[in-house]
Amino acid sequence: MLGFGGVGRALAAQMCALGRRSRLRLCAIVDRSGYVFVPAGLGPREVARLVNAKAAGQSLGSLGTAATPDVALDFIAAHAAQAPVLADVTADETGLLLARAAARGRFDLVLANKKPLAGPQRAVDTLLAAVAAAGRTLRCEATVGAGLPVIASLDGLIASGDRVRSIDGCASGTLAFVLGALESGRALSDAVREARERGWTEPDPRDDLSGRDAARKALILARKLGYRGAPPRAEDLVPRSMRGLSVAAFLQALPRLDGAFRARAEQAARRGRVLRYVIHASPRAASARLAEVPKDSPLGHLRGTDNLFAFRTRHYPDAPLVIQGPGAGPARTAAAVLTDLQALPAR
Amino acid sequence: MLGFGGVGRALAAQMCALGRRSRLRLCAIVDRSGYVFVPAGLGPREVARLVNAKAAGQSLGSLGTAATPDVALDFIAAHAAQAPVLADVTADETGLLLARAAARGRFDLVLANKKPLAGPQRAVDTLLAAVAAAGRTLRCEATVGAGLPVIASLDGLIASGDRVRSIDGCASGTLAFVLGALESGRALSDAVREARERGWTEPDPRDDLSGRDAARKALILARKLGYRGAPPRAEDLVPRSMRGLSVAAFLQALPRLDGAFRARAEQAARRGRVLRYVIHASPRAASARLAEVPKDSPLGHLRGTDNLFAFRTRHYPDAPLVIQGPGAGPARTAAAVLTDLQALPAR
Repeated sequence: MLGFGGVGRALAAQMCALGRRSRLRLCAIVDRSGYVFVPAGLGPREVARLVNAKAAGQSLGSLGTAATPDVALDFIAAHAAQAPVLADVTADETGLLLARAAARGRFDLVLANKKPLAGPQRAVDTLLAAVAAAGRTLRCEATVGAGLPVIASLDGLIASGDRVRSIDGCASGTLAFVLGALESGRALSDAVREARERGWTEPDPRDDLSGRDAARKALILARKLGYRGAPPRAEDLVPRSMRGLSVAAFLQALPRLDGAFRARAEQAARRGRVLRYVIHASPRAASARLAEVPKDSPLGHLRGTDNLFAFRTRHYPDAPLVIQGPGAGPARTAAAVLTDLQALPAR
Repeated sequence: MLGFGGVGRALAAQMCALGRRSRLRLCAIVDRSGYVFVPAGLGPREVARLVNAKAAGQSLGSLGTAATPDVALDFIAAHAAQAPVLADVTADETGLLLARAAARGRFDLVLANKKPLAGPQRAVDTLLAAVAAAGRTLRCEATVGAGLPVIASLDGLIASGDRVRSIDGCASGTLAFVLGALESGRALSDAVREARERGWTEPDPRDDLSGRDAARKALILARKLGYRGAPPRAEDLVPRSMRGLSVAAFLQALPRLDGAFRARAEQAARRGRVLRYVIHASPRAASARLAEVPKDSPLGHLRGTDNLFAFRTRHYPDAPLVIQGPGAGPARTAAAVLTDLQALPAR
């Protein structure tokens, strides 16, 4: 497992809970500082100890072996079990690292990290080519909709020979929650703070508010449909002046935006509409933007951190196939990683 | 492939369309009259010829070899390719036949037929035990929600260690269409006739109107959650006096029910409600019944043949994970069978 933030800790706990019901073992945790590698598998006690030590400010490098991820993966590849899998639960730029790990021919890949699949087309091609050449599998359910079965369902449609024409909806649980809170009169800054405390935002909440995170999801979906154009330019809800701040300074400055967002939400309400951050993906386009949608529509009915994905295909040309539900949270994201791990072909 | 009705013909066509993009070949078609077996695989021309001959009133037994399904499967098992799969796209009582086919150790099973999984508990146990003992796989996506990814999503939740507490919704595209048509003032008999012409009903539309088909789906879902109680007694929309008629006589007598259903729908409308045939599945219960639901609710918003399945789990305790979309039609059902076929483990 690469990364040991909220999703990583939830995944470690869930794997321990599955225990003997599963053929999976969590053998190593890697982060930027180093790694902990226990070939026989980390048990609940070791995981709890690591979680506590990490919470107390210690790093994996000091708890295990200090090393760069590259060196750590080399060592683990050489000493790991029969069919090792690398689960990337970071939010880092890891594309090249993953391509190398797969090309060593040792790792199947399961990604919760969107960046390796939402980078420049050439980098994605390199990664996918390395995986294919090594005869490995890459799964990425957790990159879109947290635990919702979006990617698996899309893969199923494609496998059956159906043609997926477009995917539309709301792909950001954080933005759904924040924009929904505006409807009930809450301040933007207040809603963002709550979302962050609940673990529903990316480490830097501007990754959500900028639309970058939603745009990455639109791009990942569009690329699965064959799109090879430029990454979409997301509509950024954060004004230019606040983009260079540290995370702490940004959170402190956030109340400055409350007035403008309140006005925008009230304006929409006067037209019987509500604000939603919507994505669109098709073989020819990918986009992410703030939109006013009718209050009385599937997107207008969304509540809480609910995401919604509407698939229009040859078999669903008019009424779409819709997958909807809470689309944020480390436990749900970790569960999607675990579903992917279980679905890997036996080696 | 066992069966050559609407779903079977759609499946044969879709498999031919996939062609070389798939490692699957359609080698044999079996029905009650006999079988056609082409070890190298049936191509689009042969399939078209069989479809036309069947439409002209000929039977598979006269087009190929006359035999009972038991004898046909024995022959095919002995002469078939490396990893044969038996797809049951009938609506027949085939549980024992399937158990035997699997126990011969030769067939993975993909079911669109609900009956083998919705029969008496002992018969289901026998089938599943035979499949497990032979080290084979049974998949059944098409038994619930036609092409909607209901079973695969449920399997994914279970694989991740999530606990599914309940599944609620509408599982009959036919009843959704018919009850929706009542809302817009159409007569019951008129709506049933249209649904039948479009291929949205079971061969005998009373299988839908009786709630038996919805109840089977509730039972299949509940059993996947661990339910081992009695099959649910569905609320039957067909009065006792019309249950013994032939299909043709039943369709002719159907307008007699129009008045009562119109009154029932109008009564609901006066309370701001609409009629829906709802199912419930949990580890402790399975049910299927006619209910009045608020017009302004997820179930009330359903249109056309839309099904809806709301999963409440440990990770989705309040806002459920929802899968929604058109849940009827031979092409969508066949696509689900094809998705299952592609997802079988390589042998």
